[in-house]
Amino acid sequence: MKEIVAVLGPGSWGTALSMVLDENQHEVRLWGVDSKQIAEINTEHTNKNYLPETQLSDGIVGYTDLEKAITGATYILFVVPTKAIRSVAKQVAALLDGKTKPVLIHASKGLEQETHKRISVIIEEEISSDLHDGLVVLSGPSHAEEVAKKDITTITAASGTDEIAKKVQKLFINHYFRVYTNSDVIGVELGAALKNIIAVGAGALHGLGYGDNAKAALMTRGLAEISRLGVAFGADPLTFIGLSGVGDLIVTGTSIHSRNWRAGNLLGKKVPLAEVLESMGMVVEGVQTTKAAYELAQQKGIEMPITEAIYRVLYEDADIDEVIRDLMMRDRKAE
Amino acid sequence: MKEIVAVLGPGSWGTALSMVLDENQHEVRLWGVDSKQIAEINTEHTNKNYLPETQLSDGIVGYTDLEKAITGATYILFVVPTKAIRSVAKQVAALLDGKTKPVLIHASKGLEQETHKRISVIIEEEISSDLHDGLVVLSGPSHAEEVAKKDITTITAASGTDEIAKKVQKLFINHYFRVYTNSDVIGVELGAALKNIIAVGAGALHGLGYGDNAKAALMTRGLAEISRLGVAFGADPLTFIGLSGVGDLIVTGTSIHSRNWRAGNLLGKKVPLAEVLESMGMVVEGVQTTKAAYELAQQKGIEMPITEAIYRVLYEDADIDEVIRDLMMRDRKAE
Repeated sequence: MKEIVAVLGPGSWGTALSMVLDENQHEVRLWGVDSKQIAEINTEHTNKNYLPETQLSDGIVGYTDLEKAITGATYILFVVPTKAIRSVAKQVAALLDGKTKPVLIHASKGLEQETHKRISVIIEEEISSDLHDGLVVLSGPSHAEEVAKKDITTITAASGTDEIAKKVQKLFINHYFRVYTNSDVIGVELGAALKNIIAVGAGALHGLGYGDNAKAALMTRGLAEISRLGVAFGADPLTFIGLSGVGDLIVTGTSIHSRNWRAGNLLGKKVPLAEVLESMGMVVEGVQTTKAAYELAQQKGIEMPITEAIYRVLYEDADIDEVIRDLMMRDRKAE
Repeated sequence: MKEIVAVLGPGSWGTALSMVLDENQHEVRLWGVDSKQIAEINTEHTNKNYLPETQLSDGIVGYTDLEKAITGATYILFVVPTKAIRSVAKQVAALLDGKTKPVLIHASKGLEQETHKRISVIIEEEISSDLHDGLVVLSGPSHAEEVAKKDITTITAASGTDEIAKKVQKLFINHYFRVYTNSDVIGVELGAALKNIIAVGAGALHGLGYGDNAKAALMTRGLAEISRLGVAFGADPLTFIGLSGVGDLIVTGTSIHSRNWRAGNLLGKKVPLAEVLESMGMVVEGVQTTKAAYELAQQKGIEMPITEAIYRVLYEDADIDEVIRDLMMRDRKAE
């Protein structure tokens, strides 16, 4: 069945997901605030700043008017940066009439600054349950560039309501985009957000000249510490060894495609943080998430040595060489 | 305290571990059967076929006489290929007198053909407990080349007896080689052996032109299936998310340094198996382990789709393109 899907956020991931939905014959409305970018999508059928090599189908229509984009949409997909989620959700809530109740989906990865809330919590706070038909989180190991090229990708659709997760699975699944359902929304969202911290760390090790053995060690110990934090907040520990946990960590922590990894790599090469963030040109969620995770760990009394090390580099101007050396040289103990 | 350590097996890993022991001021006796190679170690202080870029200390002394190598040794480290473990253990047993009782260590990764036994089981069958002082398994994410360069590496020392694991930890630990103790011998050995299957698969995906998303998916689903098999044979599931499980999988499954990955990559490029094995020049444990794991899974009725797919390519001449496509396209379901 042809659905109408409003995709909010024309970054690389929002655009790649729009291409999957278009491939599946749905009506795709890609909303963004940059009128030049939206015009490029509608006239050139490209989105060069985000997916430089990609030609878009003319079935993907750009919108700058949020009301037009979501009116009649049966699905609304949020793919905006974490810091914009609340304000976009507020705008959506004001425009929904409670008649066509869309299923809400989000594919963003982060935690809200100050409140440290998960993205689904923010959306549910802003859009009351009588205005929508449920919420699904989409997450997994997925470079946008590869999805745009139709390389095989697997992803998790998580919802507290199995029926809604299955609807979203059906919406997205095709021969190159494989969707698995999952019921652990907390674990999927926390894994997605927290793994970016470890990706920054793996990039930093690379920038400092460490090898694969050290990076694998950091990723393994990192997975253990983000699982500990997740479990303290109600996640199922098994979720962290699934697609949205270790799967996403592998893809983010070993690949130069990942902007979190790239940011870490530059930090490892002693480029100042401000310069790193400027040079990326895109949001580096891991930098914000490190602060949130550090504060949450303090609050719950959870040991997170890797997160703490990266926090000290990012926010306390600690020397990265020294911090990483201390981290790798901790006392011998049991695993 | 200066220990006498006999290292049996002068391959790349045995040589790199010898360098760690030499760095730690122990007496290192590196035993092998190839007299030309042993002569090279003793005169040139190199082992060019295995660690081409490395200069060895003259503290590492090569032996072709097993009796001389192990006489008076307080530790005996087995690092021979899996298929040679039983015969070397037999020879060692015949030479031990029960007076100096050495601690036995092994750092090999595989399962015995036909019997599918773990390496510690083989060693304990051949060397009775009154001839030694305990057995420790050494495993973790560790390219030999990086250990030889003194890059930071973390590793697990697993034993049923904590005291013995701690002795081996103390023997090896230094500023770049970080050793953690672990009590799950079964999980550590099965993780070490079985992850090579997944590394072959990840290499094959690369050779076939798949991207990082697909490889991360395969590694994640692969970790799940090797854990299932491990648990059926008494392993602790948590071991599979530790250094010897996911850690080793990351390093083996994402790196061209890994010979299992390289073998898979060549298979993906349609090079015939016989030619692949010949071109490697070293043992590719994953090829043998695939058969063992496939048969064990059948025996216990455990679903291992990735192992089965690789088995079909290696042993039933199935078309790799087709097998991998089938694998990645399995029906949609819950994670």
